[in-house]
Amino acid sequence: MVLTVEEIGQRAKKATNQVAALTIEKRNALLLQMAQAIIDQQDAIIAANKEDLAEYGHTLSGPMQKRLTLDAVAIQDIAQSLKAVATLPDPLAGPYDQWQTHVELKIIKKIVPLGVVAMVYEARPNVTVDAAALTLKSGNVVILRGGKEAIHSNTFLAGVLRQVLTDSQLNPDIIQLITDTSHDSVNDLLHMRKIVDVLIPRGSAKFIDFVVANATVPVIETGAGNTHIFVDDSADQDEAIRIIHNAKTQKPSVCNSAEKLLIHESIVAKFLPKVATKLVSSHVELRGDDASRQIDQNILPATALDWDTEYNDLIMGIKIVADADAAIDWINQHTTHHSETIISETPEHVVKFMNAVDAAVVYQNASSRFTDGFEFGFGAEIGISTQKLHARGPMGLPALTTIKYEVFGDGQIRV
Amino acid sequence: MVLTVEEIGQRAKKATNQVAALTIEKRNALLLQMAQAIIDQQDAIIAANKEDLAEYGHTLSGPMQKRLTLDAVAIQDIAQSLKAVATLPDPLAGPYDQWQTHVELKIIKKIVPLGVVAMVYEARPNVTVDAAALTLKSGNVVILRGGKEAIHSNTFLAGVLRQVLTDSQLNPDIIQLITDTSHDSVNDLLHMRKIVDVLIPRGSAKFIDFVVANATVPVIETGAGNTHIFVDDSADQDEAIRIIHNAKTQKPSVCNSAEKLLIHESIVAKFLPKVATKLVSSHVELRGDDASRQIDQNILPATALDWDTEYNDLIMGIKIVADADAAIDWINQHTTHHSETIISETPEHVVKFMNAVDAAVVYQNASSRFTDGFEFGFGAEIGISTQKLHARGPMGLPALTTIKYEVFGDGQIRV
Repeated sequence: MVLTVEEIGQRAKKATNQVAALTIEKRNALLLQMAQAIIDQQDAIIAANKEDLAEYGHTLSGPMQKRLTLDAVAIQDIAQSLKAVATLPDPLAGPYDQWQTHVELKIIKKIVPLGVVAMVYEARPNVTVDAAALTLKSGNVVILRGGKEAIHSNTFLAGVLRQVLTDSQLNPDIIQLITDTSHDSVNDLLHMRKIVDVLIPRGSAKFIDFVVANATVPVIETGAGNTHIFVDDSADQDEAIRIIHNAKTQKPSVCNSAEKLLIHESIVAKFLPKVATKLVSSHVELRGDDASRQIDQNILPATALDWDTEYNDLIMGIKIVADADAAIDWINQHTTHHSETIISETPEHVVKFMNAVDAAVVYQNASSRFTDGFEFGFGAEIGISTQKLHARGPMGLPALTTIKYEVFGDGQIRV
Repeated sequence: MVLTVEEIGQRAKKATNQVAALTIEKRNALLLQMAQAIIDQQDAIIAANKEDLAEYGHTLSGPMQKRLTLDAVAIQDIAQSLKAVATLPDPLAGPYDQWQTHVELKIIKKIVPLGVVAMVYEARPNVTVDAAALTLKSGNVVILRGGKEAIHSNTFLAGVLRQVLTDSQLNPDIIQLITDTSHDSVNDLLHMRKIVDVLIPRGSAKFIDFVVANATVPVIETGAGNTHIFVDDSADQDEAIRIIHNAKTQKPSVCNSAEKLLIHESIVAKFLPKVATKLVSSHVELRGDDASRQIDQNILPATALDWDTEYNDLIMGIKIVADADAAIDWINQHTTHHSETIISETPEHVVKFMNAVDAAVVYQNASSRFTDGFEFGFGAEIGISTQKLHARGPMGLPALTTIKYEVFGDGQIRV
């Protein structure tokens, strides 16, 4: 029997109180059992994944195909990350603030799960398990909606996780997968205001924009990263080249890689040829403004569209700016509020940049590739928020919680 | 010259860095100067307010007319609340978390203003000043859009506040009022994603639903309160009657007043006549289910619509339930997630109610009229959030802030 999205939502809501009431010992035990179950079922998972690859593998780019593929190593990684989540501290544990009011009401500000978390993502079956693990750890119910390319893998993996819940006499609807991979199912999710406490979309900037424009449920925007590096006149130029090369080329497909390079005009004649040579040697296509192309004619002309495009590829936009103030203004016009970098040895410029640039993470003299829950030391990551409400930047387990005020009285009325 | 909403937004964005950089001493000094300016301009404010009353007073209900009216006492209150905000602690002050990562990056998790806060509200000119005070205190720019009924008062008050900024050589656009009171101006605000960091609507449930359904900017929902009181079989019945009477009648027009009464069936025969007599003596109209009407035939029949209606008036819905579990289920079907109350002396029922009821504030044995930033001890209130993300329940100054990660390196790249 295939459930409608509405029915899945109703079942999710029903399961919220059960999962919220599980002790941390029980939640961790379930995560370890899930890790074991994934390992036990390795062959069957690989078989399901082969069906996905046979159907959709040829339609995907190389990196996407790699993300879709589950081999023995990938399955060990998935199991390992379940075990890692089990070792993290309980996000629902206190200490809770508590106080007495002027009329002797006792107020406890508790940390509680959000309730029903919906995740919409693409062809990455590991997200199915990661998202289920993080939501379970934080006492939430999860509704998963992965891409059609991974439907066999996701269905099998969700089944394995649900079986662990059933074996523990728990409601398996604590983890549910929507198997309808049409746009309709996403649309239904976006409008279930009585059910969905938060929807976290992962995917292209275009998809996330669609979700924000259409959702009536609360959304946390993640991951759009048109990130800039500004090289100031005082920069250590060798260090700058190392950082730019790393931020652009180490993993160009991800949101924390660099997309745009701004260079102080007083150093551009000397600096641009060096950095261009280094980037081109790693097959980076350069697209620049007129000023940069006068210095290096191999740079292609950038169009207005370039400045707001997240390439996620070996392409970099280059612009010459008059000074740090001009860099800050430019970045605030084009930022996706993810990660922005200044390379400078001038403390006043660094302070001004950090204060004035409107981004979740601002760097001095380091690669923006560190914008990541694990690199930040959070031990987990449910996504990288590019919005300002609720959570900003890399989101660990606390992003999946909210608060609740419990008020204890003995007959107090308001006069 | 009347600016378009878009132009107001552009000016607001430009002013963000200036207000965010003001010291707490400067922000507090401005608040005190504003208090003095309001007092100095008392006669002119009253004159402007009289224009509003002449134009719209006759179209408003008694309580709404009272809220619109600015007399000497109301103006003293406004000035007083500006002074009170000046005494509150700085919401941007630390201590900030800071740590070193495994590659020796130094991360500082700073508290920063949201940026541009938009407030849309009705015919309450004091909100113009309150909202400006709280956003200034938290380092934000504010865009105010009040109701047409208060346009003369709001325009004059905003002018007084802006003059204080100008007199301090600051950008007056830190505080802006939209004087276009057509629906178009609200619609424009709802879609200024590049400008508005958060929009806080205050008004009817219908208006807030409209905002949530249509906004593409981030919204904090406030104030819809279809709140319930459940009287358990173990309740102290005299105390219960006192609490119910207070929660229903002390200020029925506000969101934290009680709207629905659920009574345990085992005590209803004895309890309902007593509580009904008390409520009716204060002119409360009772609307009940069949079971309650069999006990008291003066109770009017409730329709399905009643159970989801926030009356904001001297009306109360009454329903008989089998036990605490049934009360919890009913409340979770009909709650607006604001404030919910159990009156009980049975600890297990109280714990279950507090855990299972999905509301910002859950009470035992007290009036829900205490859901309020001042009563909670926050010293200020920008609204009462009925959502789970970012802020929940009464919102003080911290709800107007977000975080920013500043990362300091010396050439770190990711390997």
